[in-house]
Amino acid sequence: MSSRTVIRHGLVITASDEIHADVLVEDGRIAALATPDSQSWTADRVIDATGKYVIPGGVDAHTHMELPFGGTHASDTFATGTRAAAWGGTTTIVDFAVQSVGHTLREGLDAWHAKAEGNCTIDYAFHMIVSDVNDETLKEMDLLIEEGITSFKQFMAYPGVFYSDDGQILRAMQRSAENGGLIMMHAENGIAIDVLVRQALARGETDPRYHGEVRKALLEAEATHRAIRLAQVAGAPLYVVHVSATEAVTELARARDEGLNVFGETCPQYLFLSADNLAEPDFEGAKYVCSTPLRPREHQTALWRALRTNDLQVVSTDHCPFCFTGQKELGRGDFSKIPNGLPGVENRMDLLHQAVVDGRISRRRWIEIACATPARMFGLYPKKGTIAPGSDADIVLYDPHAEQVMSAATHHMNVDYSAYEGKRVTGRVETVLSRGEPVIVQREYTGRAGHGVFTPRSTCQYLN
Amino acid sequence: MSSRTVIRHGLVITASDEIHADVLVEDGRIAALATPDSQSWTADRVIDATGKYVIPGGVDAHTHMELPFGGTHASDTFATGTRAAAWGGTTTIVDFAVQSVGHTLREGLDAWHAKAEGNCTIDYAFHMIVSDVNDETLKEMDLLIEEGITSFKQFMAYPGVFYSDDGQILRAMQRSAENGGLIMMHAENGIAIDVLVRQALARGETDPRYHGEVRKALLEAEATHRAIRLAQVAGAPLYVVHVSATEAVTELARARDEGLNVFGETCPQYLFLSADNLAEPDFEGAKYVCSTPLRPREHQTALWRALRTNDLQVVSTDHCPFCFTGQKELGRGDFSKIPNGLPGVENRMDLLHQAVVDGRISRRRWIEIACATPARMFGLYPKKGTIAPGSDADIVLYDPHAEQVMSAATHHMNVDYSAYEGKRVTGRVETVLSRGEPVIVQREYTGRAGHGVFTPRSTCQYLN
Amino acid sequence: MSSRTVIRHGLVITASDEIHADVLVEDGRIAALATPDSQSWTADRVIDATGKYVIPGGVDAHTHMELPFGGTHASDTFATGTRAAAWGGTTTIVDFAVQSVGHTLREGLDAWHAKAEGNCTIDYAFHMIVSDVNDETLKEMDLLIEEGITSFKQFMAYPGVFYSDDGQILRAMQRSAENGGLIMMHAENGIAIDVLVRQALARGETDPRYHGEVRKALLEAEATHRAIRLAQVAGAPLYVVHVSATEAVTELARARDEGLNVFGETCPQYLFLSADNLAEPDFEGAKYVCSTPLRPREHQTALWRALRTNDLQVVSTDHCPFCFTGQKELGRGDFSKIPNGLPGVENRMDLLHQAVVDGRISRRRWIEIACATPARMFGLYPKKGTIAPGSDADIVLYDPHAEQVMSAATHHMNVDYSAYEGKRVTGRVETVLSRGEPVIVQREYTGRAGHGVFTPRSTCQYLN
Amino acid sequence: MSSRTVIRHGLVITASDEIHADVLVEDGRIAALATPDSQSWTADRVIDATGKYVIPGGVDAHTHMELPFGGTHASDTFATGTRAAAWGGTTTIVDFAVQSVGHTLREGLDAWHAKAEGNCTIDYAFHMIVSDVNDETLKEMDLLIEEGITSFKQFMAYPGVFYSDDGQILRAMQRSAENGGLIMMHAENGIAIDVLVRQALARGETDPRYHGEVRKALLEAEATHRAIRLAQVAGAPLYVVHVSATEAVTELARARDEGLNVFGETCPQYLFLSADNLAEPDFEGAKYVCSTPLRPREHQTALWRALRTNDLQVVSTDHCPFCFTGQKELGRGDFSKIPNGLPGVENRMDLLHQAVVDGRISRRRWIEIACATPARMFGLYPKKGTIAPGSDADIVLYDPHAEQVMSAATHHMNVDYSAYEGKRVTGRVETVLSRGEPVIVQREYTGRAGHGVFTPRSTCQYLN
Repeated sequence: MSSRTVIRHGLVITASDEIHADVLVEDGRIAALATPDSQSWTADRVIDATGKYVIPGGVDAHTHMELPFGGTHASDTFATGTRAAAWGGTTTIVDFAVQSVGHTLREGLDAWHAKAEGNCTIDYAFHMIVSDVNDETLKEMDLLIEEGITSFKQFMAYPGVFYSDDGQILRAMQRSAENGGLIMMHAENGIAIDVLVRQALARGETDPRYHGEVRKALLEAEATHRAIRLAQVAGAPLYVVHVSATEAVTELARARDEGLNVFGETCPQYLFLSADNLAEPDFEGAKYVCSTPLRPREHQTALWRALRTNDLQVVSTDHCPFCFTGQKELGRGDFSKIPNGLPGVENRMDLLHQAVVDGRISRRRWIEIACATPARMFGLYPKKGTIAPGSDADIVLYDPHAEQVMSAATHHMNVDYSAYEGKRVTGRVETVLSRGEPVIVQREYTGRAGHGVFTPRSTCQYLN
Repeated sequence: MSSRTVIRHGLVITASDEIHADVLVEDGRIAALATPDSQSWTADRVIDATGKYVIPGGVDAHTHMELPFGGTHASDTFATGTRAAAWGGTTTIVDFAVQSVGHTLREGLDAWHAKAEGNCTIDYAFHMIVSDVNDETLKEMDLLIEEGITSFKQFMAYPGVFYSDDGQILRAMQRSAENGGLIMMHAENGIAIDVLVRQALARGETDPRYHGEVRKALLEAEATHRAIRLAQVAGAPLYVVHVSATEAVTELARARDEGLNVFGETCPQYLFLSADNLAEPDFEGAKYVCSTPLRPREHQTALWRALRTNDLQVVSTDHCPFCFTGQKELGRGDFSKIPNGLPGVENRMDLLHQAVVDGRISRRRWIEIACATPARMFGLYPKKGTIAPGSDADIVLYDPHAEQVMSAATHHMNVDYSAYEGKRVTGRVETVLSRGEPVIVQREYTGRAGHGVFTPRSTCQYLN
Repeated sequence: MSSRTVIRHGLVITASDEIHADVLVEDGRIAALATPDSQSWTADRVIDATGKYVIPGGVDAHTHMELPFGGTHASDTFATGTRAAAWGGTTTIVDFAVQSVGHTLREGLDAWHAKAEGNCTIDYAFHMIVSDVNDETLKEMDLLIEEGITSFKQFMAYPGVFYSDDGQILRAMQRSAENGGLIMMHAENGIAIDVLVRQALARGETDPRYHGEVRKALLEAEATHRAIRLAQVAGAPLYVVHVSATEAVTELARARDEGLNVFGETCPQYLFLSADNLAEPDFEGAKYVCSTPLRPREHQTALWRALRTNDLQVVSTDHCPFCFTGQKELGRGDFSKIPNGLPGVENRMDLLHQAVVDGRISRRRWIEIACATPARMFGLYPKKGTIAPGSDADIVLYDPHAEQVMSAATHHMNVDYSAYEGKRVTGRVETVLSRGEPVIVQREYTGRAGHGVFTPRSTCQYLN
Repeated sequence: MSSRTVIRHGLVITASDEIHADVLVEDGRIAALATPDSQSWTADRVIDATGKYVIPGGVDAHTHMELPFGGTHASDTFATGTRAAAWGGTTTIVDFAVQSVGHTLREGLDAWHAKAEGNCTIDYAFHMIVSDVNDETLKEMDLLIEEGITSFKQFMAYPGVFYSDDGQILRAMQRSAENGGLIMMHAENGIAIDVLVRQALARGETDPRYHGEVRKALLEAEATHRAIRLAQVAGAPLYVVHVSATEAVTELARARDEGLNVFGETCPQYLFLSADNLAEPDFEGAKYVCSTPLRPREHQTALWRALRTNDLQVVSTDHCPFCFTGQKELGRGDFSKIPNGLPGVENRMDLLHQAVVDGRISRRRWIEIACATPARMFGLYPKKGTIAPGSDADIVLYDPHAEQVMSAATHHMNVDYSAYEGKRVTGRVETVLSRGEPVIVQREYTGRAGHGVFTPRSTCQYLN
C-alpha cells in the first residue's frame, strides 16, 4: 500500500535552510520538496501548514526510560515516555541500555530491547552504558556497533555502581578509536565528590541544596579535562553529556580550539533552572536533584554562549523522571538518597523555541541543536534530523505563536510534578508525523504503542 | 517563456546534506527536489548526473576585477574574470567597489557598476571599500545598504592609499552596528610594516622574498586583535579578510570563544602555497606577492585546523591578477613596487575539493566554506549558496574522479602565469548553470557576457 | 669628614629577607649589617629601631613634578614634591623630562635638569618622554643612555601632543633593543578614545565621570597588546605604565607566559579608588581624573592578584597633582579639559603597607614592588632599593603600629585636596635617611633642598 | 667555644643581591656582612675569596637516600649521599620518609630518622610520603608538622604501591589547608599509564625507551591539572614535583595566572637530558629511567622558559641512584622492572651554573631556584638559603671560571655511572662550610658523618 501526504504552505526549517515549500511524503519517507503550489501532487492526506513551521521531529539523544536507580525506577516506561516525547515534538529517542557489573553488554542490551519493543510510539535507538570494561566487554563493543549500537557511555562518577576508572576509560576509548564507536562521558570526579558528600552529611547538611554544593563545578571541569586528555591519548572522539558548569565549557572550548573531536551536550534544566530551585524549601528542591547538578544562575550565560559558538553542540533532556511522592522522598534526611533525575522529554522543543523567541538562538540553530546535530552525532542522519528527499517523514508542524503554560496538570509524562510548573512559553506542537504516520493531529493523540521501532545507527557523522 | 531542466541521479551536496535526488529547475530557480525517479517530470533539458556531484555554484566573496593598483590594473576584466570563474564552478562573485580619498562612495560605486554591467557571465555583487570615513561617508553607508551594498571594507595597511586610522575604523563600525552593515578588515599594521619595508630596502633587501619577511605574522595578528577590540567597543560584527598567520587565527579563536561575532576568511594561496614560493629565484617570487603575504609552510596547519573548527568560516580567492610580464616586473629591484595580488578565481573550487580528497575537510564542509557561508555572510542566502526549492538555479555538476593539471596554458583567467602551475588535482567542473542557463556544458563554454546581473544583498545572515 | 650612624634592634626588611640586624652607615653608604649587638660599633648617631621596620627608602619611578599639561602645571615643584616624598618614606624619584615636538631630547632634558637641580630633598633621576621620533632623536637616545637616562616613554594616547604612531614606536623600540634602553608605554588607544570623547561631549556628557566611561578598558587592553607585539617585533623589552584594567593585565600575563620581557606598573589610585570616585557629585569627581582612568571597583581584584603573581611588578604613583581650585576647575563643563593627574607621592608607602595589614601582600612583597623592583627595573640597583653593604644609606624607619588619617590638612604635597581624604591607615614613616643624612627625624623635617642629587642610571636590571 | 671565620673579598650572591662584601661567621652562623675591608675583624680562620662567588649552600629539596624501590634500594646511603651533596655545593637535603600502606606515618618517620641520624655530613630534613590516607594518618599529619615535618607527598602514579586515589588526595589536601602542610604531588595518571605499560610489554616493547613512550606527557599534564583542581577545591597550596612536560608547565602557568598557590619543581635531568638518552642502545637507556620520564628535547625550551617566568620555582634533583650493574639490570627484558631514578645530588649546582654561563638564567636566579626558594618553600628560611646576619653559615665558595668534566670516575656518589658522563662544564665548588664548619676545603673533604643534623622546618613561606 502506498500512502501519500502533502504538507502545504508551511515554512520548512532545517539546520541550514528556511524555505517556503510544500513537502510530499510517500510511504513514510519524504519524497520531494517543492516551491509552494508548483507541483500538482495528489495525496491521501493534505495538511495545511500556513503560518506554521514544518520542522524535523526532535531527536532526544539522552533519555532513561524505566531506569533502575537507587532502589527505584524512572517513572516513565517506554510506552508513557515515548508518547510524551511525541506530544513534545520529539520523534526519536536514544535511550541507554545498561550493563551491570559482572554481566555482559549483550545481557543488558537484550533487557532493554525487551522493555522497549512493541511499546514505543516513536522510533528509538540505544546507547550502551558500559559499567565493566574487560577483554570480553571490549570485544562485545565491536559486535554492538554492527547491530547499530554505536555509542558507549562511561561514568567518572558513581563509584561502585557505574564508575569506570581511568584505565577502563582509556581502554574503551582505544577500542572506540578502532571500531568507530563514540564514548559518551558522565564527567564528574565521583571519587572526590563522594568524600564531600560524606563530609556534608556528617555535618548534618542533608537538604537537597547540598547536593548542588558538594558536586562542585570544579570537579565537573576536572573530569571533563581528564576525559578529554584520555581521549586524546587514545586518539578517539569524545562526547560529554549534561555539561552544566562554566568551567567545564572552558575545557571543551579549549580542546576544540586545539582541533580535537570533543563534543558537549547540555540540557534544558541547566539553561532554564538553577541552584535556586535546589534550595526551594520543604524538600521541594528534591524535584531538581540530578547530576551534574543545577548550578548558580550565572553559569547559564556560558552555556547559552557555548550553544551559539558551537562549543556545545547538542541539547538533550537526560529525561529520567521520579515522582516526588514516594520516589524523590526516599532522600528526605539524606540528599544522597534522592533518586537523580528530572522529567523533560516533553518540554525540550518548546523550551528551546522559547530561546528563539527570546533571541538567544536562531530558528535554524534551534533545529540544529535539537534535531540535526544529535542525528549526525549518533549516526541517524539523514534518516532523522532533517527534511530532505529520502529522509524519514518525521515531521512536526509547529505553531510559533501559540502560547502555553507548562504544568504537571497537562503534561503527558508519567510523573507527578513538572520542573517548569507555571512557566509560560510561546510556541506549541500541533501535529506530528512519525515515518509519515500521524501521531499527534491538531493536539489529539493518534499514535499507537508499537509504531515506533528500534533504529540501528551508523557511527558518528560529526567528526572533523 | 517557461523553461524546465531536470538534473537526474546525481548526489546533491549542500552545506548540510548529501542526498541522492533529482532536481527540477524552472524559470531559473530550483522548483523541486525529489527522490530519484519518483516524479515524472517533463523538461526541456534533462541532464544525467549519474556519478557526479550536484552542488551549489561557488560564491567567491573576494575578487578585484580591473582593480587599479600601483600604477596598473588587475588584468582580469569583469568579462574575462567572470568567465574564468564560471569555468571554475563559481557562479557568484562579490567584487570591491572603491571609494577614492576625497570622493564619495557613490562615485566609486557608480564607476564599478559601469565596469561590470553588461560584461559578466555570472551574477555579481559589490562590497564597498571605504577609504575616507567622514560624516558624509557614514550617511552614504546607510543608503548603500538600501541598494544592496551591505558590507564595507577598511584597511589597516597601505597608509596614504586605502588606510583608515583607528578612529575612522571605530566610526565606521559604530555606523555598521546601527545600520546592519558588515565591516571587512584588511588586518595588517601598515604603519609599522612601512617602517620595516623602508629599512629592508635601505639594507638592499629588494627581492620578493623580503615582502614576506617584513609583513610579519605578529603584525597581522596585532591588527586582527585591534580590529576585534574596536568592533567590540562599537558593538559591531567583524569579518577579517585573507587571514594567513597562525597568530591571527589565535586571536580570532579567542574572540569567538568569548562569543563575539568575529569572522575570518582565508584563501587557497595560504592553504596551498608558502613563503618558499616567494623565495623562488629569478624574480619568480613576484608571482606570489600578495598581502597578507604567503607564510612559512607551518602556518597551513593552523589554517586547516581553523577551517575545521569554524574559527575560519570562508575561503575566498582575493583574486587580483597581474601578469608577470609588464606588471609584476614593475617591482624588479624594489619588492614594494610589485603589484599585490594573485590569480585564483578559477582554481578555488578545485583546490578545496582536493582538500576533500586529501581528507582535510568533508564534502559538506567544502560546500559550506565555498558556497553556503559566503552566501549567508553577505546576505545572498538562500538565493545563492544552496540547492533548495526557491533558490537560484546556480548549479555545478562536478566530476569527483576526473583528474586535471593546473596551468596557465589551459586556464581561462587573463594572466600569463598560474600560481599552481603543474599542480595535479582530482575533481573537475563539468557543467555549470547560472540561474538555470547553461554557462559551461560538458566543458564547453556556452555562456555570454551580460547574462550575469548585479545582485543586491541583504545584511549579514551569519550572526550569533 | 667621616660620619657614622648605627641603627639598632630593628627588623630589617628587604625584598628577600626579614632579619633582626643592626645596620652600620658610614659616609652615606651602608657599611655593614650584623646580628643585634654582635659588633661594638661606635657611631656619631645611634638610632634605636626597636619595634620598628628598617626598610629601604621607597623608589617612586613615576612622578611628574611641575609638568606642563593642558595650559597649567602640576602644582608640586621639585622642591615641594621631593619634600613630600620624603615625608612619605620615598627617597628616590624618577621623574619625566619632556621632549616637545620639534625640539631635541637634549633641550627637554636640560630644561628638566634646571627645574630639579638644587631643589630636591632626595635623590632623583629622569626618564625621557619622547614625543618626536626621528633620526636625530634616535641618535640622542644613545647619548642619553650614556648620561644615565636609560628609559624612554612614549604615548599611544594624546594625539597631537605626546602621541607616537606605531611606526615611531617601533623605531624607538628597535633602537632600545640595540642600546639597552627601556621603552615605557602609556597604553591607551588615543585615536579611538578621542572619537568617543567628541561623541560624549556632543551628547552633552560633560561630567568627570564620562572621562572614565569613554576611556574604555578594552582600549587600554588593545593598546597594551599592540605595544607588546611591537616590542616583540623589535626584540625589545617593554614597561607599561599605570595599568588599570583587568583586560590589560590579561594581556600582560599572556605575554609573560610566553616568556617576553614585558613589565607592568600600577598605581595606588587603581588599587584603592574606583570609578565611584569619578562619579562624585558637584564636580568633585574631577579630583580623580587621570589617565588611564579609575575603573569600576571589580578591576581591583585583578590588579591585586597580578601584584601577587608578579604579572605586575611595580607600584609607582604617577604623581601629577593639580589643585581642585583653579586647576581641576578648568574642566567644568568639559571633562576633556580637566588636567589629568592625582597627587600621591607622599601616600604610596603607607597605602601599600595597609595592603600588608589587610593581608593582600607580604611585607617583603611590599618592599619589592615599592623599592627593589623599581630600582632594578630602572638601573638603580644595588645603590637604591635594598639594604646591603655598599648600598646608599636611603633608609626608612617605619612604625608598623602607628595609625594615621590621610588628609590635605596634614599632608605635605602642594595641592589643595587629598585623593584619600579621611582614610585611616595603620603604619607611619618615622625617620628617613637619604644617603645617611637625616631628612625626617621622628616626624620632624630635617632635610634641605639641594641635598638630593641627580642619579644616573644603568640600563634595566630586571630582564629575563 | 666561640669560633670566628672571615671570608674576604668575594662576590656575595643571594637570590636578590650581588655585593662585594666580607662575611663574618661566628659560632656557626653568619654574624655580619660588611663592605670589603671596612671592618677590622679578627678571626680564627680567614678565607680569601678573591675572584670567587660566595653563595648560600644549595638546598636540595628532593632526594631519596636508601629508598627501597622495586626490590632493591637506592645505592646512596645518607652517609655517601650527603657527602656527595657537599662535594657538589649542597648543604641541606630534604629527603622523603616513607609511610608504607598499613603502617603509620610515625613508623615510617622513625625508620628514616634511624637511617639518617649520625650519618650525615650536612643538615637534613624530611618530607613524609603518605601512602595510606585515613583518619589516623590525617591526625598524624598535624603532629608531624609540630615536629618540623611540614610537607607531605602523594602519588597519582604507582597504583598498589604509593598511589592515592582522588578522594585520599582531597582529604590530605583539606587537612593541609587547615594545618599549614604542603602537599607535594607526583603528577602522572598512573592508572592510565599502567594500561599502556601492559599493552607495550604485550607488544614486545621492552626496551627502556618505551618507558618514555608510555608515560605520556599528556598524562603528566592531566594529573597536574587534576591535582591543581583538587587543591583548589580544598583551598590548599600545591607543589608539583619533577615537572618534565611542556603541557604540564602550561597547566601550572594557567593556575598561577589565576592566582592559585601552585608551585612546580623541575630537575636537571629534564633540563639537560632527553628521550634520546632513553633510546641509547645496549640497555644503556636504563641509566636514564626515572618517572616522570625524560622527554623529547623540545620540552626543554618550555622548562627553561618557565624557570625564567617563575612558573617553575625550584630545581631539585630527585636524586635516587641505582647502579647499572645489578640494579638497573633488573629490568632487562621488561622496562617496567627497571628501578626508577637517577643520581644527581652532586651535579645540580654545577649544571645550573652552566645555565648561567650559557645565558639561560641570571646568577641571582641560579641561587633563587637552587637555594633560596627551596628554603622558603619548605620552611627553612632564613636559616638556610641565603647569606644574611643570623642565617646558618652554610656557605659555598664557588670558582666561576674553573672547568671540570663530569664522570663516574671522579664523582662521589655511590653509583657506577654518571648521567652526565663526559659533560664539560664551567664552574666548580671549591670550599664548603656547613654551619661554619669546613666540609670541603679547596676540594679536599674535611667533613664528617654526624656533623649534619635533622633540621625541623616551619610551614611554607612562599605563599601568595
